[in-house]
Amino acid sequence: MKRIAESSVRRLALYLRFLEDFTKRNTPTVSSEELANASGTTSAQVRKDLSFFGSFGKRGLGYPVAELATQLREILGIGRDWRVVIVGAGKIGAALAQYRGFRQHGFMLVAVFDNDPTRVGKRIDGVTVRDMTHFDRDLKTLKPHIAIVTTPAEAAQGVVDRITKAGIRAILNFAPTGVQVKPDVTVRNVNMALELEVLTYALLHGDDA
Amino acid sequence: MKRIAESSVRRLALYLRFLEDFTKRNTPTVSSEELANASGTTSAQVRKDLSFFGSFGKRGLGYPVAELATQLREILGIGRDWRVVIVGAGKIGAALAQYRGFRQHGFMLVAVFDNDPTRVGKRIDGVTVRDMTHFDRDLKTLKPHIAIVTTPAEAAQGVVDRITKAGIRAILNFAPTGVQVKPDVTVRNVNMALELEVLTYALLHGDDA
Repeated sequence: MKRIAESSVRRLALYLRFLEDFTKRNTPTVSSEELANASGTTSAQVRKDLSFFGSFGKRGLGYPVAELATQLREILGIGRDWRVVIVGAGKIGAALAQYRGFRQHGFMLVAVFDNDPTRVGKRIDGVTVRDMTHFDRDLKTLKPHIAIVTTPAEAAQGVVDRITKAGIRAILNFAPTGVQVKPDVTVRNVNMALELEVLTYALLHGDDA
Repeated sequence: MKRIAESSVRRLALYLRFLEDFTKRNTPTVSSEELANASGTTSAQVRKDLSFFGSFGKRGLGYPVAELATQLREILGIGRDWRVVIVGAGKIGAALAQYRGFRQHGFMLVAVFDNDPTRVGKRIDGVTVRDMTHFDRDLKTLKPHIAIVTTPAEAAQGVVDRITKAGIRAILNFAPTGVQVKPDVTVRNVNMALELEVLTYALLHGDDA
């Protein structure tokens, strides 16, 4: 169940991207076929995903673009000003800290942390890198909803333990290692090499992946 | 079928990460339960994923760590020296170009391209940023297997068209937009904001995602 829901949520977020494109082009309605083509799935899957959250479209008329976008934003919690901290101000951490797409989607970067004295105090796009020494104290004030972990592999579990101890229940993990958390915490692992391996599998084994 | 295979491939790549950890710790065998715990799935799923590629383990004895790792490496095509190009030398592109994890897993960065004259000619970690003007000609010599697209959204489709025209059949897309390709090309979309939205969905709707 858990797995199915997650892939469905990913698709909802993807549908929303295309609905935002359709809004810009002033398209009033969109068919499940159009959404399916745009997001690389089937129209049956689109209808199934959307019906899970109530009845959106009218048969033969398609989905109303603006209304569906609003409902998807609500379902996904977009526009709520989620507070995000990044732990690890290395190359990936710094690149993410400057990523425009976060702010555009309502994610507010409130702090970046690192334990490297040569990084602490530097400013990345208006945010000063804070010292990990004050991590636990700072989190009490910042009250972030989401932590992005961009530390080396060997530091990840320790950092994740401090993050969850502070009450954060959502973690995006870029460290090239798995981390253990309690069941009430959601972790998403982003692993660049792993993404490439899914591609090489497809190259080796034809289009069955 | 396509979707199922992909999530299964992702899990295989994840199992391999943990098998590599187990190898470092000189653990000779591992149970499906241990692999399941480490990678956040069920032991039934682990057995199913691995059985799909032949019979690996012996009932009651667990999986031989080194042997299973070798077979997974072969299945995933790891260690084959895949040639990778990055298109877009902005912040994300530059961060990826310096990402150690790629080389560690057999991915060789052979070129970085950009159309911004202030970026062309600069060196990123030993690789010179090339001019998009010579993209098509350069690809004929470089013969990359995989292209990573880190351009702005509006440039992505045009770049993807040139990439596929050059015969590349595997694309990792970081541009915050979907792209259209022919069925014989595999695209993986990595969208940071989308990853965060899966997390906020989980925060809003409990642990059902």
